[in-house]
Amino acid sequence: MRLSRTETIGPVSFYALLRRFGSARAALDAVPRLGRRDVAVYSRAAAEREVTALGKLGARLVCWGEPTYPCPLAAIEDAPPVLTLLGRGELLTAPIVAVVGARNASANGKRLAHELAAGLGEAGIVVASGMARGIDAAAHGGALATGTVAVVAGGIDLVYPEENRGLYQALASEGAIVAELPSGTEPQARHFPRRNRIISGMSLGTIVVEAAAKSGSLITARFALEQGREVFAVPGSPLDPRSRGCNDLLRNGATLTEAAADVIAQLGPQLHGAPLRSRRVDAARELPLIAPPSAPPPVVIDDDSGLELIFEKLSPTPVPVDELVRQCQLSAAAVATLLLELELAGRIERHPGNLVSRR
Amino acid sequence: MRLSRTETIGPVSFYALLRRFGSARAALDAVPRLGRRDVAVYSRAAAEREVTALGKLGARLVCWGEPTYPCPLAAIEDAPPVLTLLGRGELLTAPIVAVVGARNASANGKRLAHELAAGLGEAGIVVASGMARGIDAAAHGGALATGTVAVVAGGIDLVYPEENRGLYQALASEGAIVAELPSGTEPQARHFPRRNRIISGMSLGTIVVEAAAKSGSLITARFALEQGREVFAVPGSPLDPRSRGCNDLLRNGATLTEAAADVIAQLGPQLHGAPLRSRRVDAARELPLIAPPSAPPPVVIDDDSGLELIFEKLSPTPVPVDELVRQCQLSAAAVATLLLELELAGRIERHPGNLVSRR
Repeated sequence: MRLSRTETIGPVSFYALLRRFGSARAALDAVPRLGRRDVAVYSRAAAEREVTALGKLGARLVCWGEPTYPCPLAAIEDAPPVLTLLGRGELLTAPIVAVVGARNASANGKRLAHELAAGLGEAGIVVASGMARGIDAAAHGGALATGTVAVVAGGIDLVYPEENRGLYQALASEGAIVAELPSGTEPQARHFPRRNRIISGMSLGTIVVEAAAKSGSLITARFALEQGREVFAVPGSPLDPRSRGCNDLLRNGATLTEAAADVIAQLGPQLHGAPLRSRRVDAARELPLIAPPSAPPPVVIDDDSGLELIFEKLSPTPVPVDELVRQCQLSAAAVATLLLELELAGRIERHPGNLVSRR
Repeated sequence: MRLSRTETIGPVSFYALLRRFGSARAALDAVPRLGRRDVAVYSRAAAEREVTALGKLGARLVCWGEPTYPCPLAAIEDAPPVLTLLGRGELLTAPIVAVVGARNASANGKRLAHELAAGLGEAGIVVASGMARGIDAAAHGGALATGTVAVVAGGIDLVYPEENRGLYQALASEGAIVAELPSGTEPQARHFPRRNRIISGMSLGTIVVEAAAKSGSLITARFALEQGREVFAVPGSPLDPRSRGCNDLLRNGATLTEAAADVIAQLGPQLHGAPLRSRRVDAARELPLIAPPSAPPPVVIDDDSGLELIFEKLSPTPVPVDELVRQCQLSAAAVATLLLELELAGRIERHPGNLVSRR
C-alpha cells in the first residue's frame, strides 16, 4: 500500500520495482536510494490512518494477487496494486461486464442500459460501471438485485456526483464500490480516464450505450481494446449525437448489441472458461507482493551520464524501452534502473506496452 | 420482347434459349416445338399493341445489351431481358446506388433517406428506389434534382401507390421510371421481390434505411449480396422495431452508414473504375440478342423417359443443374434441353446460381 501510494510511482513502475527488488518491502527501502531527488514515500502513519478510516467506513483493502482481486484486472499491465473495496467482495470474482455511456443520456438510453444490466444479471454476470449519472446509474440500477460494482474516480468515502448518494448507499450495501486512489481524494478530471481503465480491465467486455464522439465512454472502450477485451456498442440513429460514438465503435468492429443475449453469445466461451484466471495465477507466481524472495542486487550507476543519455533520447511521444536499450548501448538492466530513477524523479512517464515518455 | 414476355420463360430460361438457339428470333421459332404442351408465345400483335401504348405514354423499351441498359444490371444472372423506360434514359448509365426502406417510416428515417439521397446526388450518383411510400419516396425526393430512378413492380403506366401520383409525374419528367413487366400489369404481391432484384441489380450498392425484421427491404439487401454488391445499413435504436432489420444487417457485415460519405468511401474504386461495364460488354459479346448466328442444333429427345427421369429428381427445394447431370447420367446438353422443356411446360422453376426446382 505504501509503495503504491508513493508519489511518482505508477502501477507500471510499481511492478518494475517489485520485479527488481523482489518484494514491496525491499522496494520501499530501496526507493529513497534510487531517486536523485527526495521521493515522498507514503508514510507508515498515513497508511495506518487510511486503514483506520477504511475500517470505520466498513471498507477494506484488496491487493493485487489476493483471491478477491478481479482476475481480468490482475492481467492488465497497469493493474492497480491496491484497491479499496466497500460492499460485497465476492462480486469481484464473478464474470464482470461493463456497461458505460453518456451522462446526459436519453430516456431510451437509460432504459436500454437498465435492461441490458438486468439481462446480464439474470445470466449470472456482474455489471461494472462508473456511478456517473445517466447510463452508469441506470446500469447499476438494473443490476442492483443481481450484482453490480461501481469503480469511482476519487476516494471510496466520497459520493460523486452528490445526486447519486442514494445509489452510493445502495451499492455499498447490496453491490460493491471500488477505488484506486486513497480515501479522502477528491475526484479530479485527470482521475477519470485512469478510473476507466479499471472498469474495462475488470470486465470481460465493455458495452457502450449512447456516447457522443470523443466522450469518456470511448476512452473506456479504447482501454478495453488495448486490454484485449470485447467491445460492444448499442446502435442509434445518426440524427442523435449521443449515438455518434457508438456508431463509430460499430464501424470499427465493435459487436452490435441490442440485448444482453448479444453479449452473452459473443463472450460465450470466456464466461465458462478460465483463461484470464490462469493468467493471473501465472502472473502472481511471477510477482510475489508479500513474500520477500532473494532479490537480485540493483545495478548501481553512480554518475549521471547514463541518466541524461537516456533522458535526451526521450520526448513526449512514448517510445519502446527496447528501442532505448538498443540506442543507448547499455544493458537492459542498466536502462531499467535508470528509467526507475527518472520516474521516481518525476521526469518520465510509463505507458502500457513497455513504453516511456518525457513527462 | 416477345420471347421474354412469353409465359413460363423467365430470365434464366430466356438466356438459356438464346445460348441454345443463337438469337431471340430462332428461339421464338423453336419454343412451340420444344414444349410438350402448348406454350402461349407472346403474339406479335400483343407486342405491337404494347409498343404503341408505350409510345403514347412517352416510354420506350430498353433491351439487355443496349447501351442504355444499366451495366451492373446486365451483369446479374437473371437480368430482365427487356425493360420499359419512362424519363431520362441517361440516368441508367450513371453509377447508381439504391436507397430503400420501410413504408411506415419514421419522420427521422425519411429525413435520413432524403439527406442520404441528396448527398449521393451531389457526388454524381443516381439514386434508385421502389417508389413506395416512406423511405423510397423520401429517397426519390432527395435526389430528384440530381437524378433518381424508380423501379416499379407493375406496368410502367400504372401509378402505385396512388398517393405517389405527384412523385410519379415528377420522376417521369425529371428522373426515370423502369418496369420489367408489360405495361398495363397490375402490381401483385409476388411481383415485388422480383422487382427488388432489379433495384439492387442496377446499383453498385444498396442502403437500407429503417427496416423491420423480415421486411421487403431485407429481400433487396439479400439480392444485393447474392449479386456481389455492397450492402449499407443505417443503425437505429434497439427500442425502435423499424431498426431491427438494419441492425441485423450490420451484425452480418453491412457497412454502417450515417451519411453519403460512408457510402462513397466504401464504393470509392467502383465509382471510378469500370469492372461492371466491361463485364457487360463481355457478356454482350457472348450473347447476341439481335444478330442470329449459326445456332447449334438443339438436342432432340423424342420420348418422355428423360423428361420424367429429371422431373422425378426434382423437389420444391432448388438443386444445382450440375448435380442433376451427374445423377441422370445424361449429357449436359440433353439435360439443358429437357429442363427447357419442363420450364416451358410450367413444371419447373429456375433460380440464380444455375439451380432448378419443381414449381
